[in-house]
Amino acid sequence: MTLPTPLTGVVPPVCTPLTPDREVDTASLVRLVDHLVAGGVDGLFVLGSTSEVAYLTDRQRALVLDTVVRHVGGQLPVLAGAIDMTTPRVLDHVRALGAGGADAVVVTAPFYTRTHPAEIARHFRLVARGCEVPVFAYDLPMAVHTKLTPDLVLELAAEGVLAGLKDSSGDEGGFRRVLIGRRPGPSSFSVLTGSEVTVDAALAMGADGVVPGLGNVDPEGYVRLYRACRSGDWALARTEQERLCGLFGMVTAGDPARMGGSSSALGAFKAALRLRGVIDCPATAEPQIPLSTEDVERVGKYLAAAGLM
Amino acid sequence: MTLPTPLTGVVPPVCTPLTPDREVDTASLVRLVDHLVAGGVDGLFVLGSTSEVAYLTDRQRALVLDTVVRHVGGQLPVLAGAIDMTTPRVLDHVRALGAGGADAVVVTAPFYTRTHPAEIARHFRLVARGCEVPVFAYDLPMAVHTKLTPDLVLELAAEGVLAGLKDSSGDEGGFRRVLIGRRPGPSSFSVLTGSEVTVDAALAMGADGVVPGLGNVDPEGYVRLYRACRSGDWALARTEQERLCGLFGMVTAGDPARMGGSSSALGAFKAALRLRGVIDCPATAEPQIPLSTEDVERVGKYLAAAGLM
Amino acid sequence: MTLPTPLTGVVPPVCTPLTPDREVDTASLVRLVDHLVAGGVDGLFVLGSTSEVAYLTDRQRALVLDTVVRHVGGQLPVLAGAIDMTTPRVLDHVRALGAGGADAVVVTAPFYTRTHPAEIARHFRLVARGCEVPVFAYDLPMAVHTKLTPDLVLELAAEGVLAGLKDSSGDEGGFRRVLIGRRPGPSSFSVLTGSEVTVDAALAMGADGVVPGLGNVDPEGYVRLYRACRSGDWALARTEQERLCGLFGMVTAGDPARMGGSSSALGAFKAALRLRGVIDCPATAEPQIPLSTEDVERVGKYLAAAGLM
Amino acid sequence: MTLPTPLTGVVPPVCTPLTPDREVDTASLVRLVDHLVAGGVDGLFVLGSTSEVAYLTDRQRALVLDTVVRHVGGQLPVLAGAIDMTTPRVLDHVRALGAGGADAVVVTAPFYTRTHPAEIARHFRLVARGCEVPVFAYDLPMAVHTKLTPDLVLELAAEGVLAGLKDSSGDEGGFRRVLIGRRPGPSSFSVLTGSEVTVDAALAMGADGVVPGLGNVDPEGYVRLYRACRSGDWALARTEQERLCGLFGMVTAGDPARMGGSSSALGAFKAALRLRGVIDCPATAEPQIPLSTEDVERVGKYLAAAGLM
Repeated sequence: MTLPTPLTGVVPPVCTPLTPDREVDTASLVRLVDHLVAGGVDGLFVLGSTSEVAYLTDRQRALVLDTVVRHVGGQLPVLAGAIDMTTPRVLDHVRALGAGGADAVVVTAPFYTRTHPAEIARHFRLVARGCEVPVFAYDLPMAVHTKLTPDLVLELAAEGVLAGLKDSSGDEGGFRRVLIGRRPGPSSFSVLTGSEVTVDAALAMGADGVVPGLGNVDPEGYVRLYRACRSGDWALARTEQERLCGLFGMVTAGDPARMGGSSSALGAFKAALRLRGVIDCPATAEPQIPLSTEDVERVGKYLAAAGLM
Repeated sequence: MTLPTPLTGVVPPVCTPLTPDREVDTASLVRLVDHLVAGGVDGLFVLGSTSEVAYLTDRQRALVLDTVVRHVGGQLPVLAGAIDMTTPRVLDHVRALGAGGADAVVVTAPFYTRTHPAEIARHFRLVARGCEVPVFAYDLPMAVHTKLTPDLVLELAAEGVLAGLKDSSGDEGGFRRVLIGRRPGPSSFSVLTGSEVTVDAALAMGADGVVPGLGNVDPEGYVRLYRACRSGDWALARTEQERLCGLFGMVTAGDPARMGGSSSALGAFKAALRLRGVIDCPATAEPQIPLSTEDVERVGKYLAAAGLM
Repeated sequence: MTLPTPLTGVVPPVCTPLTPDREVDTASLVRLVDHLVAGGVDGLFVLGSTSEVAYLTDRQRALVLDTVVRHVGGQLPVLAGAIDMTTPRVLDHVRALGAGGADAVVVTAPFYTRTHPAEIARHFRLVARGCEVPVFAYDLPMAVHTKLTPDLVLELAAEGVLAGLKDSSGDEGGFRRVLIGRRPGPSSFSVLTGSEVTVDAALAMGADGVVPGLGNVDPEGYVRLYRACRSGDWALARTEQERLCGLFGMVTAGDPARMGGSSSALGAFKAALRLRGVIDCPATAEPQIPLSTEDVERVGKYLAAAGLM
Repeated sequence: MTLPTPLTGVVPPVCTPLTPDREVDTASLVRLVDHLVAGGVDGLFVLGSTSEVAYLTDRQRALVLDTVVRHVGGQLPVLAGAIDMTTPRVLDHVRALGAGGADAVVVTAPFYTRTHPAEIARHFRLVARGCEVPVFAYDLPMAVHTKLTPDLVLELAAEGVLAGLKDSSGDEGGFRRVLIGRRPGPSSFSVLTGSEVTVDAALAMGADGVVPGLGNVDPEGYVRLYRACRSGDWALARTEQERLCGLFGMVTAGDPARMGGSSSALGAFKAALRLRGVIDCPATAEPQIPLSTEDVERVGKYLAAAGLM
């Protein structure tokens, strides 16, 4: 389908269910897509960080995209992450994703190698030139160790290089500079926040939508939150957001002495999807340490406290 | 060929010459290999950071390995970098490199994703289990944003998971802890420094060898330095090392207001190889900014000052 | 005066006007206080980062506090920063500030030395034990290179060690966890944001007030913004906040090739106060580079665009 | 006394013994000075990081300096740290130290506030202008979060602003650039390494001396190491250095789940001095967590293994 301009609403980054031997579990993936669509989401973002894209082989990436694109059948836009170190490798992914039916691609600044701001700009320009679908910038300094400046984002937006921004930087000041800078007038440039816990604030500042990892677990909650904000019912929005903030506490379920924060968060989302009956197996990809039985019990308590079990 | 245990000597990370349109220039690559072999080096490391591995597509990586392995024909050991974000993706590369004839693979800690030390250990164990040739750990915190601790390296060495370490961390204290910790007795575990400017110090502490990016430009210099250290002629070693420190200044040839330090260094090595008549074209991969004509003149002055032109 | 519990509203960190030879300009300081009080602010924070506390000698710190406390005469609460590296040195400042008439003190985590979370907790407990007035925690990772965790802040609040938090961390997720965690019921624990550009969002989440450096330049603007939020007029609040975001652009007036971002911001605030006729001299403390004439012209344009000249 | 130019040899940063209630224990301090002088050291550095300068009040700093200067009576040069956030505060310390009899002062880049390289240069120039004794730069990025570049150090050395450098940055490449850059000819600019574990390497590269925190515990060891290097007996130097590397392991005696690495290291040095009978009480300053009985036992084992008990 053609991507709406701007893209708005709730666009969860779709988890990638795995079998116990770490193969893509396409049956569970299809059920997860159904769960999200039934929850009322406005688009799907596959092959993002929450999808464990960094752990998926090229073959698995293609399988995920193909499974979701076929199953969605054009009902919703499907964005896909083209996550790799530099321009030539990203271009290889971008071509595969375009051929695979993605409606837009999502691209970070280069990583592993150190780059100058001028090289980051050149990267996005070259990717966009080699790409048949719209390109979103993915600002994720925690992963790539570079922050996209508001000036760079606005310059690339004005040039038509970027169709949108997914901002997971946690820098609300910079986020606001992009929102203020892209005006006036109706914009075709989408600004989406990746923060699960400040969606009401982001929408109040003028953001178009949200890409919440926690939206895998509770898509209805994020859709209610989005609609409350759009209708200007900020008190209702705050109540819903605070419930979701409580639920988000599940990302700390894993013991920090035993495993990383990223593994804990991804493990918790998958454990919650298993507990809610959406996917068959909560396995995360190697080399991530799995949650223990006690950790999973903690996830269950977060679900119960948020009214989801 | 079978890898010597331990691997010792000068093992330069081989630059990847490109054509003006950024394809692998195999004719120049072959000449570069000849230049290194003629310089007396003890092994070759392809597909490392200095080889711009982060910028090469999978097809280009295979072409580089195949070109070098065929040309070397078993005269020297060929190590190959299997650089990717996490275990499953690294395993895909490792299998390709083994099939392609690499004598050993070089692997970093996971990157892009954040990992716990226990997950880094698991990563190396799983990679070694899936790999038919020896595995070297590549400690490069500037790229992967995680430091391998001496305790972890020594533990994995004792288990037989790792055959060696390439340490480009710049942490001499930690490097020394590995050197002291692996003794006593003859060791099959190779400890190589990746620092161009402290080779004499590293060898004096007990290191087995060096992986110098600058060794592309002046392999004879590093071989003389290595031999001076091995013969205990520390005064001669210091003189040679200080000449190479001067030559290393070329990495700052690029204007920092215009390009990154990494692009400047890689551009300078390639410009020097072009000026010395080894390769045809000094292009670096996208999105790196190329050196200007003035920058290349500066590179030429460094060569002249070091007696190389 | 006794500090209100919780402290609410607009509490600007008061700039410290200097003479051309870098002595405290008490006449200008008194005029600045009058300007802020006339603007309707709810309290004053002296000796904070925006006050250049890091540059003031102990004698100058005492002079600033004495000047402000005498002039205010109990009309408004005066908070004072006790900024130093560790507990014993902070305690020396805390005693001087208490004797000098501060109504509360503001204290960061230790810096220069590296500390464990348990040591940070111990620091705040020991400071509070040695202090006769309430203690606010100042979360400023950009300066002290440690982030106060929401759990630590809530624990110290529950113990009565802390009377409030000034959060300049830029971590909206953590800020929200403190806001949600301190409830339910009316709280005596004040939560203030230090971010100039997301005040509407912070107040919508439940914050009690704001400590805006830019409030020196435009106190009326922040007071209008605060009142719009309190009355639930979020559209008006957003308009006022966006005007202030535009004005905040003045912090980039200094040329980044020539001076630091901190010097640029402090220089711009003082240049604006000079242009508005509040203080006599825009000098910043050594070793900060001063703004150039062109930089000051840029500051003037920001004032004009925001309707302040 | 007049400072030798260049200052050479072993110049330990002198620990500050405290009483159980955290007052300076001058009797123990005098015994510690005697222990160091008897060990053959070439100078003393008081009020450095290892001296817990960040934790000492101004009154305590003056007491430490006065105690050491009077006791040494000009037999050895005494360097003193003037550690504070910015130029005006450092100048206050510098004047006090000069009046107190220090033969040189040691000064870091500004901290807490963020500064531009041009502001760091200005800082050292202003400090030197206001100081009657020679100024050493203290490169300690772990504490001040800024690295002094070799170019800046060499520029300030050439201007006569700096009399020397104490390099605790751990960046051996930059250290070597300073050593090579200051030549040719006999230099009055002292270059000292602060690394305990690579002294042989630093001296082989041309450094003038070492400022080893561990030298409090084993001054004879560092003096033997220095002399072996100076006589060109690199094999003996390596053996002594490796013994000291083993001893240095004591810095990890404290449990990282319970206390910081800095507290562990300082606690271990003081525990070792107590076990060796030099000082009366191993207390460290607040808010540092003390070593446990088991931790102190571990310290004892390191002493025994190094032949010191």
